[in-house]
Amino acid sequence: MTSLPSSLAARTPPGLHVGFVGSLLNRAEPLRRDAEKLARDPKARLLSLHDYHPAIDGGALATLPLPDLPFDQLALIGIQDGAPLFGHIDPTASAARRTTELMSLLASLPASEASTYAAARSLLDWHSRHRFCANCGQATAPVRAGWGRQCPACLAEHFPRTDPVVIMLAEIDDKVLVGRQAVFPPGRYSALAGFVEVGESVEEAVARELVEEAGVRTTSVRYVASQPWPFPSQLMLACIAPVDDPAITIDTDELEDAKWVTRDEVRAALDQAPGAVFLPPPPYAIANSLFEAWLAGA
Amino acid sequence: MTSLPSSLAARTPPGLHVGFVGSLLNRAEPLRRDAEKLARDPKARLLSLHDYHPAIDGGALATLPLPDLPFDQLALIGIQDGAPLFGHIDPTASAARRTTELMSLLASLPASEASTYAAARSLLDWHSRHRFCANCGQATAPVRAGWGRQCPACLAEHFPRTDPVVIMLAEIDDKVLVGRQAVFPPGRYSALAGFVEVGESVEEAVARELVEEAGVRTTSVRYVASQPWPFPSQLMLACIAPVDDPAITIDTDELEDAKWVTRDEVRAALDQAPGAVFLPPPPYAIANSLFEAWLAGA
Repeated sequence: MTSLPSSLAARTPPGLHVGFVGSLLNRAEPLRRDAEKLARDPKARLLSLHDYHPAIDGGALATLPLPDLPFDQLALIGIQDGAPLFGHIDPTASAARRTTELMSLLASLPASEASTYAAARSLLDWHSRHRFCANCGQATAPVRAGWGRQCPACLAEHFPRTDPVVIMLAEIDDKVLVGRQAVFPPGRYSALAGFVEVGESVEEAVARELVEEAGVRTTSVRYVASQPWPFPSQLMLACIAPVDDPAITIDTDELEDAKWVTRDEVRAALDQAPGAVFLPPPPYAIANSLFEAWLAGA
Repeated sequence: MTSLPSSLAARTPPGLHVGFVGSLLNRAEPLRRDAEKLARDPKARLLSLHDYHPAIDGGALATLPLPDLPFDQLALIGIQDGAPLFGHIDPTASAARRTTELMSLLASLPASEASTYAAARSLLDWHSRHRFCANCGQATAPVRAGWGRQCPACLAEHFPRTDPVVIMLAEIDDKVLVGRQAVFPPGRYSALAGFVEVGESVEEAVARELVEEAGVRTTSVRYVASQPWPFPSQLMLACIAPVDDPAITIDTDELEDAKWVTRDEVRAALDQAPGAVFLPPPPYAIANSLFEAWLAGA
């Protein structure tokens, strides 16, 4: 196993900015086998969080010397510049809400730091919400340096959950479909999205969601890029999906409005130009990257 | 919302065979709101399973007239040809193992039937293994026509779990990397694979797994296709990943061997030709489709 962070490679498509991607941590799973030794490393640090809200120090995530905590309250987030970085598994913490302030704070950080925060938040928050065994109901305890929990009664192991979500632009006649939910800020439209369910492929989920939410039928699906989303722990899979008929039938339980927009209208929206016909999703959301990729020919 | 099954569209890439994809069921989520009415439909059927092992009738999944079960023991799998199809949520069932016999049976079915089975098995087996609230430990009960469980104590809702997994061919000099685990049948090699973890993208997971398992570093990632895998409920994301150096360092905890193979060697393996240098993964596994896609230029 080499010791280079895997995240230095492999962004798709090359040059596209995607939020919460690019952590410089080496997160290789075999490192966790040595986590007790790593916790005794004088260079070991603890990520400074309060109810999973990050503290910032000099434009980066603040860390502290590793305090004297029981080993099973420590999650090894990864190693950066030779220093092991841990998070505190604190069953009494409840995740700070995704406020405008939090998102502004994350947007102000280097992408690599926002990405490290995303991993830590999803992992630690999972512990808070999964303290009991889904199989038998007993209290579970952390194992694998914080990357699992085990039940002392039935011995079932449980692993941090990642929920795949498709997010997609239906496409016809060089236009794409944007929609808005009633809870969006005024004027904002975005790509449609929904959870991938058991027993379906990414492509089937895209097709199902487009039919459900907007009544449009795709003829094929092009994958574009992906993003982890740490509220609480989705894997966003961004796609473009040509359709064969532009007629829209909205599911009003899901969407307040949906409409076709041109390349010029998408460009103006991303630029927040005067007279733009919609407000775009924020830059850290993969919907924003998906619009950029579509304009670039994806 | 239109009533056509979403699965009739959107296979990527066009023409590629992928196992467990292509159910003819309409699985639109809004149908679940009407599930009590659908359960009174005289055309409603129950999927015939024994410990989640399928019964077969005339080359298709066997079904029975819907028996008189409490509504909260019924999961609406979907609607096919106007007939609602339910599965029995039976907390006493334990999933039949993935035997050679089961896989042969599934391989003998039309792809659409194997796909419907995959969805039903993942959903019903999830209920068996998640009867208690991970948040507070109390017993939970099915909601949303079997597509969720809710805790009567803390009111937390829980949804069927789908675990994204990357499966990939590292590529250099017109060769791809295949590996074998000690548990594989003799001679079999396949693509490398691993779970996507919280806080990483598909592309980062591919890069991390290739470094961890084989010590090779990818420079970019191309997504090819996806597949639901019902043992118990993974979402397989198949990719090709060029690397910059062919030197392999195997993690012997994960792999018994790994090697680079040429196009001719992959073709011979898929054809199970005399003298082939490895035995291929079975046709219903997306690794097999990934080899075919690579040979076709993906």
